[in-house]
Amino acid sequence: MKATAEVQVIPIGVGISVRKPVRRAYAVLREAGLNAQLHANGTNLEGELSDLLAVIRRVHDTLHGEGVKRLVTFIKIDTRTDKEPSLAADLFET
Amino acid sequence: MKATAEVQVIPIGVGISVRKPVRRAYAVLREAGLNAQLHANGTNLEGELSDLLAVIRRVHDTLHGEGVKRLVTFIKIDTRTDKEPSLAADLFET
Amino acid sequence: MKATAEVQVIPIGVGISVRKPVRRAYAVLREAGLNAQLHANGTNLEGELSDLLAVIRRVHDTLHGEGVKRLVTFIKIDTRTDKEPSLAADLFET
Amino acid sequence: MKATAEVQVIPIGVGISVRKPVRRAYAVLREAGLNAQLHANGTNLEGELSDLLAVIRRVHDTLHGEGVKRLVTFIKIDTRTDKEPSLAADLFET
Repeated sequence: MKATAEVQVIPIGVGISVRKPVRRAYAVLREAGLNAQLHANGTNLEGELSDLLAVIRRVHDTLHGEGVKRLVTFIKIDTRTDKEPSLAADLFET
Repeated sequence: MKATAEVQVIPIGVGISVRKPVRRAYAVLREAGLNAQLHANGTNLEGELSDLLAVIRRVHDTLHGEGVKRLVTFIKIDTRTDKEPSLAADLFET
Repeated sequence: MKATAEVQVIPIGVGISVRKPVRRAYAVLREAGLNAQLHANGTNLEGELSDLLAVIRRVHDTLHGEGVKRLVTFIKIDTRTDKEPSLAADLFET
Repeated sequence: MKATAEVQVIPIGVGISVRKPVRRAYAVLREAGLNAQLHANGTNLEGELSDLLAVIRRVHDTLHGEGVKRLVTFIKIDTRTDKEPSLAADLFET
């Protein structure tokens, strides 16, 4: 099943600036081969729902493996059966 | 990796009352055998991150399979490596 | 206009444990005289939309005034014109 | 106090396509004179926190006034005292 999503990772306990781990999370999201559009409050993604969920787990594994001790991630998932969901269509809808 | 999470499913296109599909989503979450605590704006969950992500997919599969044409789901995931995350601890923290 | 809401405050830069500022945020929410129900991923609120928005600002003012340098707050607002919104109804819906 | 925010309005009960009321919400956000950046999962905003909260209320008032019977809005607010928050900085951070 195809989905669009938004993912925002908030590293806790790394100080006020979260730049480094957020950049790392974005790199992991991109490596997954999904359509990934960065914006100021997260990354919009488009792809198979199972791939989207798998990459979220990989972000947590990777960042914890590299020393981030706590992570809060906010995710929005949008699926529909009446037509193929896409980030372009979501934007056009607006 | 253990995690706590919050999941809120918003069925689109079923009318103003979303009671039936939201109840169905909660039933799917509970069937997964996770610690599930219902509240007025979603369900709090505690368990393995991979199980949490798997059940989110199952919710979308189930509801679409039963005729809901569009679903927006909001998810918060909280993981930490300094101690075992739990809903009880999250609440105590507050 | 009456609304139900969920508010979760995430203090950034105070370390891995966010207990103290989160407790403080909850105290500010309660002082507003709104119906406030604490759970593991935030506080559910019921009241006038203008009061809900005002107390969110007060939470940010208060915590910054007491030394928290960065705050990310997640809010869900639910309003409807077909009947009076309430936390009890939201829960019953599920 | 200056803030950055993300606002996503989800109209309930208008059918599967939410295009029209979402466009209307974006128009109301823009009319407020805030820095507003549309993306596929919401609109990023930058401005005074009180102005941001006021325009959220105006979105609900406007859409309900024009016949939308139920609205769920998701909001992220980011404030900090160590430097001026801005959408450009949020993006650069990533």
